[in-house]
Amino acid sequence: MQTLLTISYDGTAYAGWQRQQNAIAVQQKLEEALSTLMNQPITTKAASRTDAGVHALGQRAVFSVENLLIPLGKLPQVLSGYLPPDISITAATAVPASFNPRFDAAYKTYTYNFYNAPTPNPLLRRYSAFIPRPLNTTAMQKAAKSFIGKHDFAAFQATGSSAKTTTREIYACAISKHQSQPNLITLTITGNAFLYNMVRIIAGTLLYVGLNKIPADTIPAIIQSRNRTKAGKTMPPEGLTLVEVGYTNYMP
Amino acid sequence: MQTLLTISYDGTAYAGWQRQQNAIAVQQKLEEALSTLMNQPITTKAASRTDAGVHALGQRAVFSVENLLIPLGKLPQVLSGYLPPDISITAATAVPASFNPRFDAAYKTYTYNFYNAPTPNPLLRRYSAFIPRPLNTTAMQKAAKSFIGKHDFAAFQATGSSAKTTTREIYACAISKHQSQPNLITLTITGNAFLYNMVRIIAGTLLYVGLNKIPADTIPAIIQSRNRTKAGKTMPPEGLTLVEVGYTNYMP
Repeated sequence: MQTLLTISYDGTAYAGWQRQQNAIAVQQKLEEALSTLMNQPITTKAASRTDAGVHALGQRAVFSVENLLIPLGKLPQVLSGYLPPDISITAATAVPASFNPRFDAAYKTYTYNFYNAPTPNPLLRRYSAFIPRPLNTTAMQKAAKSFIGKHDFAAFQATGSSAKTTTREIYACAISKHQSQPNLITLTITGNAFLYNMVRIIAGTLLYVGLNKIPADTIPAIIQSRNRTKAGKTMPPEGLTLVEVGYTNYMP
Repeated sequence: MQTLLTISYDGTAYAGWQRQQNAIAVQQKLEEALSTLMNQPITTKAASRTDAGVHALGQRAVFSVENLLIPLGKLPQVLSGYLPPDISITAATAVPASFNPRFDAAYKTYTYNFYNAPTPNPLLRRYSAFIPRPLNTTAMQKAAKSFIGKHDFAAFQATGSSAKTTTREIYACAISKHQSQPNLITLTITGNAFLYNMVRIIAGTLLYVGLNKIPADTIPAIIQSRNRTKAGKTMPPEGLTLVEVGYTNYMP
């Protein structure tokens, strides 16, 4: 039986999702918890390989066992008890054996948080990039809309990446402020898939727009250039959260 | 010259505000930063002695020096640079020599966060109490209103406290949900002053109302009893944040 888990984690302490030598990854913690609980070695396959320091509220990963031993509905709470407090399982669903969490994903949604005030906010420092200079959020919001659509995003991938095609479709891209915390500015972006570091480079480009380093209306030209050096910097990981991985066929 | 600082901190790593032997306190970190910056030993006096693990967005503290050396307007940013990332200075104001941050306080506002969902949220774990059983927030909101007014809060102080009088005035007390995060339930309470552990005991009493352990309309009787055992439990520190200390005479 193949089971799909929805996973939240604070990425601060981890070398990213993917298991590796010499560093602790979220995948390792989850596989250890599952293996202990199920009394057999368990491996997992995730929807997204989040980088070191990146957070998740809706990562997805599958594992297979002949017999779950626990009712599916109880699995999130029981499994969370085997995990450290910075990792939690929020849902578990049975999926067909042919289901692949990465290739069957219809869309992914990420947020990138900027904390924009003269001095840092210690309570948001783990989950946002601190920007002391005032940001022009109207310009950022205007620029954000230019990312929507099917484009060749070669200018917005880490140099040296080897993706077969650099065309991706962005369904939604917006900048918002929080009612209860007006200094917190959030980029929310949904697309069919993302190139390596793409969200962090889009966030860095919108930051440059907010700082008036790049005019808001030059995003289409930057996309067309296919030139990484025309886009903004790659933002640090702590501002990034994988919010949702959507499966039109399987999930609500 | 006496200067009033507004201080934010993530209390997770600290033994509270007040300097002590054998444990690191926020006051020590601030005094070390001030002493290094001002090239002389500096001591501070705060509005509130927050407990171990309690956070602040608007703690206040004063210090005195003959000559500030730095323009007052630059002090928050410069001083934040001498502090660890979990402590930040957000404002600095000149105050008269007679000003006392504790006794001149007109009101204090605290929040207490409950994260109410079947499984924990790793991104909110440092700043909320995790409550897996569903909470009746309508009952909690109704009960919260009963705390407003001038009452003898003897039932809502830590046993063994030695406050001269246990009468305090609560100006506002409400339960709210967050639009962007409906599982986060926040108690916001403002009063002229608070007894030791008073907010955490009020939070624990409202939690019992939310869990239907205490009827919402019995708060007046619990207050009248002056009996600590009639109120709810003392909630853990991580959900508590000192949001503001207000000085009607000096501050906007």
